Formats: sequence, C-alpha cells, structure tokens
Amino acid sequence: MKWAMAGTWVFSIKGLEVAAKMLDAGEHRLDALEQAIRVVEDDPTVESVGSFALPNADGIIECDAALMDGADLSFGGVASLSGIAHAVSVARAVMASPHTMMVGQGAYQFARQRGFAPAAMLSDERKQQWQAEYEKRKAGGTLGLDTHDTIGYVVRDASGHLAAGTSTSGLFFKLPGRVGDSPLPGCGLFADDERGAAVATGVGEDIMRGVVCERVVTLLEQGMPPQQAAEQVIYNLHRRRAGAGYTVGNLSLICMNTKGEIGAATTREGGFPMSYAVDGDIEERLYQPVIGTDKSPQPYVKTGV
Amino acid sequence: MKWAMAGTWVFSIKGLEVAAKMLDAGEHRLDALEQAIRVVEDDPTVESVGSFALPNADGIIECDAALMDGADLSFGGVASLSGIAHAVSVARAVMASPHTMMVGQGAYQFARQRGFAPAAMLSDERKQQWQAEYEKRKAGGTLGLDTHDTIGYVVRDASGHLAAGTSTSGLFFKLPGRVGDSPLPGCGLFADDERGAAVATGVGEDIMRGVVCERVVTLLEQGMPPQQAAEQVIYNLHRRRAGAGYTVGNLSLICMNTKGEIGAATTREGGFPMSYAVDGDIEERLYQPVIGTDKSPQPYVKTGV
Repeated sequence: MKWAMAGTWVFSIKGLEVAAKMLDAGEHRLDALEQAIRVVEDDPTVESVGSFALPNADGIIECDAALMDGADLSFGGVASLSGIAHAVSVARAVMASPHTMMVGQGAYQFARQRGFAPAAMLSDERKQQWQAEYEKRKAGGTLGLDTHDTIGYVVRDASGHLAAGTSTSGLFFKLPGRVGDSPLPGCGLFADDERGAAVATGVGEDIMRGVVCERVVTLLEQGMPPQQAAEQVIYNLHRRRAGAGYTVGNLSLICMNTKGEIGAATTREGGFPMSYAVDGDIEERLYQPVIGTDKSPQPYVKTGV
Repeated sequence: MKWAMAGTWVFSIKGLEVAAKMLDAGEHRLDALEQAIRVVEDDPTVESVGSFALPNADGIIECDAALMDGADLSFGGVASLSGIAHAVSVARAVMASPHTMMVGQGAYQFARQRGFAPAAMLSDERKQQWQAEYEKRKAGGTLGLDTHDTIGYVVRDASGHLAAGTSTSGLFFKLPGRVGDSPLPGCGLFADDERGAAVATGVGEDIMRGVVCERVVTLLEQGMPPQQAAEQVIYNLHRRRAGAGYTVGNLSLICMNTKGEIGAATTREGGFPMSYAVDGDIEERLYQPVIGTDKSPQPYVKTGV
C-alpha cells in the first residue's frame, strides 16, 4: 500500500478521485485533503456542505470545517463561518496561524485579512427550499434535529503520515451560531501518526457528547482492529445514552489505523455509504447499523502480545 | 466522603465556598457548579474570566464557557460570546436546548431570546490596560500567545454523579473569534459518571491538540490513579509535540475519578495552584511541573486484577 484514503457518504467519491491523483503524484496529504474537500464544497448536488448547502433558520449558510495533521498534531478549525466559499481553506489558514479555532464574525474577518474573497453563497434553488420550509415551520412545525451529512476524509500518505479533514453547513434550519462536532478536535475528526485517525458525521450533538474520534483512536492505539473499534465506540455511545433515557441520533464514524486499514460503523437504519481508496482503486462500501441485540459488538479481547 | 470538588487556580476558592454550602444542602451538582463559576465571573480581581476580564484585540470581551453532566453526558457550551455577563449560565441554557454548542452573534441572540440581559462588560481599569497594551503593540509588539487562566471545576456529588464546568475570556488581545479549549468537550472539560471527569486551563491551542480531558478520563477508566493519569497525559503531550519540534505552552489539568479522588499536573514552571474540597474542608494545593527528566512519569503498569 502506497497510500490510503476514505471519505464519508457517496458524495466523497469525486473528491477522492482528485486526491488520488495528487497522492499518486506525491503531493502533500494536507493539499490532497483540502482539494478533495473543496471539490465537495463546490458540488451543486450536495445540500449539506459548502456553497450549495441548505441555510440556517435565518436563511444564511454557516459552515464549519477543520483539518488535523497527524505528523505534529497541527489543527485548524472554523465554525459558524458565513460568506466565504471554502471553509476548509480558511481552516487551513487557521492551522498555519498561532491559533487553532476561529468562529463567527471573527472567522470571517480572519479570512478576509488573509485574502479570501467574499462569496454570495445561497443558490436560488436552496433559497426556495428554505422559503418552503420556513412556511411549513411557521404553520406549526418546529426546529427538528435533522441529521446532517458532513464531508470527512481520513488519509494515510506514502510516508505513513495520517491526516483528517471535515466540512459541513450543519443542520438545515439550525439556529444561527449552532455548531456541531465537525470542527472540533476529538469529536468530528482526529489524527495522530502514532495512534490513528478518524472522522465522524451525523447528529453533532451526540458525536460531541461521545468525543467519538478521540475514543476510537484510543482503541486503535491499543491494537484493536479498526472495524471492531468503530463498532465498539458507536455501540458504547448508544448504550450509554440509552441507559440515561435518550436515543442517539443518526451518526457514523470512519477510522483508520497507522497501517491505513479502515473500519466504519453507524447507527443509521439505512446503513452508512462511504468510499475507500488504496493506491487509486476507489470502492464504495455500505456499513450496516450496529444497534440491535444480534449486531451488538462483543467486548474486545486482545490476543497475542 | 459525601462530596468532592476541585477548581483551577487560587481564584477558584471563593466559588468553591459557595458550592460547598450548596452541596452540603443537597442542591444539584449543576446548580453548585454554575453558581461557583458565576462567583468567579463576577470577581473584579480576576482578569481572565467574566465581566472584569481583559478584552480581545478589538477591545471587546469575548467569553467561552461550558458545562457537562456525567449522569447522561448532557453538554452545553458557548464560544465567542459578548455582551452577556454570565457565559456559564448561557452554557447551561444551551445544555437544556436541543443543541450543545452556540457561538458568536448566534450565541448572543440565543441568550437574549432566553431572557439574558445585555451587559456592558469592559471596566474602566481593563479599558486602560487594553489601551496601554494597544499602544505597546502598535509600537512594535505582536500578538503573543499569553497563557490564560480558565476557571474550571470538577465535582462529584453525594450520589456519585460527576460534572465539570469552565468559563474564560480567553487570551488578552486574542484575535476576535479565537476560541480555545475551554468550551470544547474532551478538550477543556469532560465528565462521565462511569469513567471520570476533568478540566484543563492554559494555552488552549495545545490542550485542543491533545484532547487532554478525554484522554485523562480514559486512563482513569482503566483504573490508573488520578495523579499518575494527569501526569501521564500532560507528559505525553509534551513529548509528542517536542518530537515534532514544538514546545507546549503553559497548561494544567485536574482530573477526578469515580470515587472523587483527584490528581493534577502542569507544564507551568511556577507550578499550578488549585483548590480541592471534600465535604466542606477546602484546601489549596500547588502542583509542580512534570517536564524534566527526573520528573518524567513512568509508564503505568496496572497491578492486581
């Protein structure tokens, strides 16, 4: 294996194709990650990421994005960023600054000062979708915790360095200023060359409570196979919240160990479709949900030394 | 032990005294936490928390705060919140909402809609300090990564439930919109009745890279004594970043296991002063830094079964 990369949802494939060429050409893992995510941010068919996303309750697209490099634990994240087309590139600029997280109007100012152009982001089609939803909610609906589909990738380059990245517009009709797991280290993403990498997608509120990316990386560090680790973390969060009387929302997780092997798990009834590539061969996979007695993962027992 | 509580820095004592009475009277752990933090937010001698804090580069106080309940993993956080006196109480309101994190102008709107009064937060004394620093920086200084002193508490109530809370104004002269570890789950705080609790303070950028509160709770869950766990996590982050050519900033960590036993560790040369209370007996402690060959923690070996 020269390199390996995996992405959330079927819409990750277009970005993976671009990244594959870059990784084959020996370009930097962070450049490959950033470009892959930009492809999705620019995709007019994707409702939950970038310029063609569905807006918040005020009719404004607010984006969250982050990048983490496993070589030195560099981190850059933005949250509640409006008016800039590529949130992931602003996150990259934050990573290069003395800070690790910029939010809201301050994140916008930061981006403008670093040369990012202002962008009018709401398409006519999305504006109409927003208007229809607004009328519906005014007529008696409420703010629902719709799931949201974050683009997230984990990558291991030919030198064995890991990295992870995310970008999302968050929930349709979310409250302005609401932030989910996607830009938060350990929650929406994590990468450490010595331990592993992960990205999450789904109901950010539950992913945050579980700090799922850090937790799955801890299991990978202990030597647990990635598939088992992903299932264990998702199942544990489900069990823990169910014990307190809550049902976790739809959420999904991809993890990658230091060898570039991946695992994924989901609570989503219809399963979790994602993409995986090794040395340019891209395949699409569907992971079935882990909730339910017969699918509950067994406690991991480490064998050998 | 009926209950136990610990807080960051010496300025945590006043809040701890208030919380002690509440915990003795059987009041809810989250109420005790919130009130303790409000005492510090209202303390005119504290430069890094609440209404009397030092402002950001624009001369505005922006606050970050969060609460987490270990009983059900409930979480509420606010970041980059201006113009509301008690950020921790807004975090409590977020915890009670369908969301877990609100930032920037949206967090302010959220607070106003829930009845929080707008507050003029910059005192004359702080305004003068800001002006003096502004003149100094204009004359050749730059934005420095000053450390910042978050108020953070961990608590175990008489029923064995854990909780954690934080509040900070972040770095003096920080860029508007800059967010550190304090409001982020797993980074600035974490609490899980089944595993343990933790709070961190110091350079948020490094605390975020290490997701230190989740990591220390994982060690507590494995049965590591709290003091050893805290030292291990701080030392590991130092080692990991040093290996990549960086020096971690001043940062400190308090953790508490499910029995209410605590540990703390720091990279801070002058040591880390904090407060600890059991059943109303409050003591002040100073933890020495873990960096340096003779103080480097040894790998933990679990004994017994």
